[in-house]
Amino acid sequence: MTKYVNIINGPNLNLLGQRQPEIYGADTLETVHQACEALAATAGLSVRMLQSNSEGALVDIIQAARHDAAGIIINAGAYSHTSIAILDALNTFDGPVLEVHVSNIYQREDFRHHSHISARANGVMAGFGAQGYELALRRMITLLA
Amino acid sequence: MTKYVNIINGPNLNLLGQRQPEIYGADTLETVHQACEALAATAGLSVRMLQSNSEGALVDIIQAARHDAAGIIINAGAYSHTSIAILDALNTFDGPVLEVHVSNIYQREDFRHHSHISARANGVMAGFGAQGYELALRRMITLLA
Amino acid sequence: MTKYVNIINGPNLNLLGQRQPEIYGADTLETVHQACEALAATAGLSVRMLQSNSEGALVDIIQAARHDAAGIIINAGAYSHTSIAILDALNTFDGPVLEVHVSNIYQREDFRHHSHISARANGVMAGFGAQGYELALRRMITLLA
Amino acid sequence: MTKYVNIINGPNLNLLGQRQPEIYGADTLETVHQACEALAATAGLSVRMLQSNSEGALVDIIQAARHDAAGIIINAGAYSHTSIAILDALNTFDGPVLEVHVSNIYQREDFRHHSHISARANGVMAGFGAQGYELALRRMITLLA
Amino acid sequence: MTKYVNIINGPNLNLLGQRQPEIYGADTLETVHQACEALAATAGLSVRMLQSNSEGALVDIIQAARHDAAGIIINAGAYSHTSIAILDALNTFDGPVLEVHVSNIYQREDFRHHSHISARANGVMAGFGAQGYELALRRMITLLA
Amino acid sequence: MTKYVNIINGPNLNLLGQRQPEIYGADTLETVHQACEALAATAGLSVRMLQSNSEGALVDIIQAARHDAAGIIINAGAYSHTSIAILDALNTFDGPVLEVHVSNIYQREDFRHHSHISARANGVMAGFGAQGYELALRRMITLLA
Amino acid sequence: MTKYVNIINGPNLNLLGQRQPEIYGADTLETVHQACEALAATAGLSVRMLQSNSEGALVDIIQAARHDAAGIIINAGAYSHTSIAILDALNTFDGPVLEVHVSNIYQREDFRHHSHISARANGVMAGFGAQGYELALRRMITLLA
Amino acid sequence: MTKYVNIINGPNLNLLGQRQPEIYGADTLETVHQACEALAATAGLSVRMLQSNSEGALVDIIQAARHDAAGIIINAGAYSHTSIAILDALNTFDGPVLEVHVSNIYQREDFRHHSHISARANGVMAGFGAQGYELALRRMITLLA
Amino acid sequence: MTKYVNIINGPNLNLLGQRQPEIYGADTLETVHQACEALAATAGLSVRMLQSNSEGALVDIIQAARHDAAGIIINAGAYSHTSIAILDALNTFDGPVLEVHVSNIYQREDFRHHSHISARANGVMAGFGAQGYELALRRMITLLA
Amino acid sequence: MTKYVNIINGPNLNLLGQRQPEIYGADTLETVHQACEALAATAGLSVRMLQSNSEGALVDIIQAARHDAAGIIINAGAYSHTSIAILDALNTFDGPVLEVHVSNIYQREDFRHHSHISARANGVMAGFGAQGYELALRRMITLLA
Amino acid sequence: MTKYVNIINGPNLNLLGQRQPEIYGADTLETVHQACEALAATAGLSVRMLQSNSEGALVDIIQAARHDAAGIIINAGAYSHTSIAILDALNTFDGPVLEVHVSNIYQREDFRHHSHISARANGVMAGFGAQGYELALRRMITLLA
Amino acid sequence: MTKYVNIINGPNLNLLGQRQPEIYGADTLETVHQACEALAATAGLSVRMLQSNSEGALVDIIQAARHDAAGIIINAGAYSHTSIAILDALNTFDGPVLEVHVSNIYQREDFRHHSHISARANGVMAGFGAQGYELALRRMITLLA
Repeated sequence: MTKYVNIINGPNLNLLGQRQPEIYGADTLETVHQACEALAATAGLSVRMLQSNSEGALVDIIQAARHDAAGIIINAGAYSHTSIAILDALNTFDGPVLEVHVSNIYQREDFRHHSHISARANGVMAGFGAQGYELALRRMITLLA
Repeated sequence: MTKYVNIINGPNLNLLGQRQPEIYGADTLETVHQACEALAATAGLSVRMLQSNSEGALVDIIQAARHDAAGIIINAGAYSHTSIAILDALNTFDGPVLEVHVSNIYQREDFRHHSHISARANGVMAGFGAQGYELALRRMITLLA
Repeated sequence: MTKYVNIINGPNLNLLGQRQPEIYGADTLETVHQACEALAATAGLSVRMLQSNSEGALVDIIQAARHDAAGIIINAGAYSHTSIAILDALNTFDGPVLEVHVSNIYQREDFRHHSHISARANGVMAGFGAQGYELALRRMITLLA
Repeated sequence: MTKYVNIINGPNLNLLGQRQPEIYGADTLETVHQACEALAATAGLSVRMLQSNSEGALVDIIQAARHDAAGIIINAGAYSHTSIAILDALNTFDGPVLEVHVSNIYQREDFRHHSHISARANGVMAGFGAQGYELALRRMITLLA
Repeated sequence: MTKYVNIINGPNLNLLGQRQPEIYGADTLETVHQACEALAATAGLSVRMLQSNSEGALVDIIQAARHDAAGIIINAGAYSHTSIAILDALNTFDGPVLEVHVSNIYQREDFRHHSHISARANGVMAGFGAQGYELALRRMITLLA
Repeated sequence: MTKYVNIINGPNLNLLGQRQPEIYGADTLETVHQACEALAATAGLSVRMLQSNSEGALVDIIQAARHDAAGIIINAGAYSHTSIAILDALNTFDGPVLEVHVSNIYQREDFRHHSHISARANGVMAGFGAQGYELALRRMITLLA
Repeated sequence: MTKYVNIINGPNLNLLGQRQPEIYGADTLETVHQACEALAATAGLSVRMLQSNSEGALVDIIQAARHDAAGIIINAGAYSHTSIAILDALNTFDGPVLEVHVSNIYQREDFRHHSHISARANGVMAGFGAQGYELALRRMITLLA
Repeated sequence: MTKYVNIINGPNLNLLGQRQPEIYGADTLETVHQACEALAATAGLSVRMLQSNSEGALVDIIQAARHDAAGIIINAGAYSHTSIAILDALNTFDGPVLEVHVSNIYQREDFRHHSHISARANGVMAGFGAQGYELALRRMITLLA
Repeated sequence: MTKYVNIINGPNLNLLGQRQPEIYGADTLETVHQACEALAATAGLSVRMLQSNSEGALVDIIQAARHDAAGIIINAGAYSHTSIAILDALNTFDGPVLEVHVSNIYQREDFRHHSHISARANGVMAGFGAQGYELALRRMITLLA
Repeated sequence: MTKYVNIINGPNLNLLGQRQPEIYGADTLETVHQACEALAATAGLSVRMLQSNSEGALVDIIQAARHDAAGIIINAGAYSHTSIAILDALNTFDGPVLEVHVSNIYQREDFRHHSHISARANGVMAGFGAQGYELALRRMITLLA
Repeated sequence: MTKYVNIINGPNLNLLGQRQPEIYGADTLETVHQACEALAATAGLSVRMLQSNSEGALVDIIQAARHDAAGIIINAGAYSHTSIAILDALNTFDGPVLEVHVSNIYQREDFRHHSHISARANGVMAGFGAQGYELALRRMITLLA
Repeated sequence: MTKYVNIINGPNLNLLGQRQPEIYGADTLETVHQACEALAATAGLSVRMLQSNSEGALVDIIQAARHDAAGIIINAGAYSHTSIAILDALNTFDGPVLEVHVSNIYQREDFRHHSHISARANGVMAGFGAQGYELALRRMITLLA
């Protein structure tokens, strides 16, 4: 049976590659998905790329991961800084969780310096661009090995 | 005409009885509903058990209560600590509001110590387990008498 | 042998039912005692109603409970917010502890929002009026069952 | 081609004119819409009146404005104080943004004194009642001229 | 008898239109006065344009308004953030008070985010440029109607 | 029937005139009592001088004042800064309350700058030495006239 | 040669007795002056009643006191909370300084709880109404004796 | 004449050796007293072991020490963190004061990290177990030599 | 045409050399002026020595400098810590600004540690006594060269 | 000419693999070096593994990197949280800087949540174990490509 | 084999006995060493007296203690308040650690009230003068027994 | 015998004139040394220019100054903001200490606004460029005269 890694994205990440490309680069969630799928395949895993602008829908998505995902890579975007509900949903998940931010949040406004999700994540990565998803997946492969 | 007490539950409470039962016990929202319905009947009331993971949907649910609910018992879960929108919705409701938390939020992380809802609730209860719903209903019966 | 639940009250609660009845209602500690004794009897328990205006005397009372009380329901009044000594005394007690406040302390002055006792109590209840004692006793019966 | 100004409203503003009319007045979003549409017409603009109780839906609505709106007037209600996701969505929009609050938020609870949206808005207005929408529209007409 | 609206300006606003025109625009207090006088005339009002760099003189000016002004529009400039004396003077005035800032103070240094005057003003407006005076006057006309 | 003014003193004030006389002067509570009694007599009042080192005993003393005192002058000493219980007791008293501190507490350690009692007292006086009691009594005579 | 006590008043106190008489009473600075002059005369002193709305003028007034005043009674009004310049001016004065506030500033907004002047004043009095000036004068007479 | 060192203990220390012996060890105040008395005798001193759960009684005990004690060793327990009254009482004592805590308070809850008594004590010791009393006595012997 | 350096002094600096000479030394603004004038002459500059106790007058003085001063040396005294109006006035000035304090403000009360003016000044100097003016002038000569 | 990536390690990292292997794993800096060297070689780079317990020596090491390193990967250990000197040294370096922490610092004590280095680093990674060095190197290869 | 207790001293403690002897006394590290060695010998232990002004060297010294020391007594001087690196080094040591400060740090500047080392030390002692080392050694002997 | 003034420089100042010359100018410590030596000679003094990147080495350097330096001019760079050890070392030095920063630290990141050294320095200067050293030396000559 295929083992899935769910890559879950929060608000405004559907615009990745479209808004402020000088900051976020030209990669879209679609191109990230392709690169990650290829890497995952080398380890016998498959990747699901998920996104929502709604906090509640993200809670639903994380709860659903309890059924069939081996690990979660999450970039909760702005909700990282405000959502305890997403933290609680992640707390109901037993597998490894890795947190990714495309930009270096520690160099931006003060309210982006703290992430509720970091309290649950096994690892946190910020400022590695869209490449961060792929680096996190490498770690996930190690953790799931 | 039946008088309703709406028991409104926030994010992740759909998993009550399933996640961390050593903390939250084995009761589910369904078993709570049954126990509360039985108690309510003794006072000529009926209970509606509602739940959503979405803040906006909870605002909708609370606004709807303005039409036909006599009182609200609410466990807004993580949104208790972050949602002013839910507080505002409750402020449009005229009947009594009682706030319930299954666990003792004052013994958990600092960000769980404050609830926006407490500013509106007639009473607040935390750490009485799933039994808290039934105890709050007893108070509601007194307030609606 | 009779099993006791000690209901311990702090400063100014000897005036319950006498001061600001529009807020606190007409119940006195005496009428609360009677109602609780009747409820306790149904579970084979007995209730002791205790009160002092002195922090030190409350520490003595709590220490004494170690000898023969099965559970403590405590409304420490103003000392809830300032007394670490009472917290320490409760920490020497092995049975369940439930914290009650007649009014909703979270809607009053900021210095009433935090209770040192909540760090020890199994459950916390505020704003359920004098009925709160009886509701806490129902929980105590469950916990001692 | 018609140029649109999107007037975007957050949670509980669907009840404008219905709740606490002594504070918020008798105007509804519908009457505001009519007045603004008439004013906009004098400048060759059209107004879209949008509302949602959901943070995620508001992000969707703002993202959609990128396609065909010349400017945004936003009253994000309670989400003004808590939503970074809405701020981020507004940051993807290139036209002018004006922030409106019906009541004077600086005279209400402390948590209403700060708006994340003010970091992006060209102008901020609070306490001008429902008339605020029309005054903001006048400014928008100037900015778009 | 003519009804006056006093537009009171604080320190450095005598330089409006002269300093940093790229930020503040080319309008001077004189051109603002003319535009406002014309608008006021349509409602049977007259406008007085007042300015001082001195906190004490501004208190004098506000106290004088008690005798013959129907409303006050005030841009207290830097004193908005530091002067309780001006707040107290405004508290002795019975008519409506509207607060105007030419720039969006919520996007500037932290110490400009709070205005003592907002605690008294019926409405607060920031970032609408010199046009803000005229928009505030429209609201004043409504309030005085 | 004699009308009493109760002068209530907190911890360590039994040593007034004995400890650090260079700061507190040579007056003792006894000499203060005599001076105040003489002044009170001119207004048909009598003065009771009370003191305790115990917070609980001070609560008792204040509760007792509800029965037969027309006003309270209180120097709660160190408890001014820490006791909510004494504040609550004073809140059960209907007559005027005046707060006196012998030294200027605002020039001492930070933790002495705030007094819980000031939230209830009609007036607060600090740094007028033992003469402060007599000045407060003059005010009390006016208030009771 | 006559020895003067300067009673120095800050902003808006020229309106004493005119604004909010239900709070501040009917006494004006003029009636206070008369009462104080009479009391001072019994001790061979004379009183000067001074007032300004300007911080700088108050600094001038205090500096002038260095030449011929034996003591200063000061009610700096709103400047008490914001003016270090007035504190510095008082620091150049060698005689006793007593601080008076007509209302109990510790029961008003947070920003009125701290007075820069208290760091220099021998005594501080708040909430004794206009009578506070006369009580402070009694203390001044003692200190100058 | 015998010179006394008073060892003064605060709330809940009467239970030393009984509660949580795995933390506090098996020593009781009685065994500590015996060990200290023996050590004191070698220096021609005698030790008084005193304890109370009441803040007021502790103030009484410290005031009494002014008459016949050469030094004070104090473990004020929970009152260390909350009692200014005890600090004030110690300030009336002229001899050396040494502060002892059985556990390392700096590793416990934040509210135990600060002791009001440390502002007066010559030395402070925490986490040396019951042996701390004896080590403090050794220092006291040096100081009194 | 002569190039001027304006040395602008704030409240209480008119007393320099008169108050607390053990701290501030015997130099007066007059002697400072003479020393600076001599130094300036060596660089073909002239010095204007200005002082006011009024914040508003200082704003006027700084605005006037826009017309004919090449640089500003400012010791705003107490207003350094409280005046945003003076900061704003300096922001309208294009030449170099140097900030001088006679005493080391970082060793005095906390509220003297921050200067609003430092946000605009090219350089800040504190604790160099009256000599600081002359050292700042040396820097000004370099900057204007 | 070989292009170097300097991997710089701060205090106590010389013990990596030796202390608390259950947390930090069995990898040592030596094994990390070997793995990174192999990866670097695939991109025509070489890796230097450097470590010091001394803040000053780390500043020296970073300054030296200015001469011949293309990029820096830094795990400054405890100095991340306290050293501005290391931040300043990094600010003199023109190439990319990536920050690595072996453990998830956001789940540890509060003082480990902030890193001065994050203000300079292009990317920050925490909680990816010793594998983090290799993942950072992958990013470095991309950045240097 | 000899069991060592390492007494480790931080910056400026090499001057003990030389600087401010009225505060720190006449004892030097050398005389402390002799006294401690004599005491240690009675328990079959030996004492090493170590000192460095360098944080990095202190980390080295503590790491070295892992090889052959049974316990550490540490007075890290100023680094106690700023060094997480030293805390981390101590966390790699398995034996008991006792923290000593010659003066009572809780009576000095605020920044000396917190010690990072206290989070690791078994016991903390401040204000016992140079005798503190010897008292700590007594405790160490007990702990190592 | 020559009297020395030691100019002590902290981390990264060895790069003065090399890094960011547009900010720090082209002067190096060497050219500063030459200019200062020439100025010192006019007063019969000699200057030693010292620098280290190590906090501990700077403590050593300051301790050494106790033997033969008449005064210290110190630019501790980043350690100004973090090092209590350097403050303590300066506290062992009896002569005048002047603090210099090349840039205006009050306009940079918040963590650069506070300097521990300012608590000891006679004077503090920031933002006068490399010329600041020479201006400080002029003051030093005055102080040593």
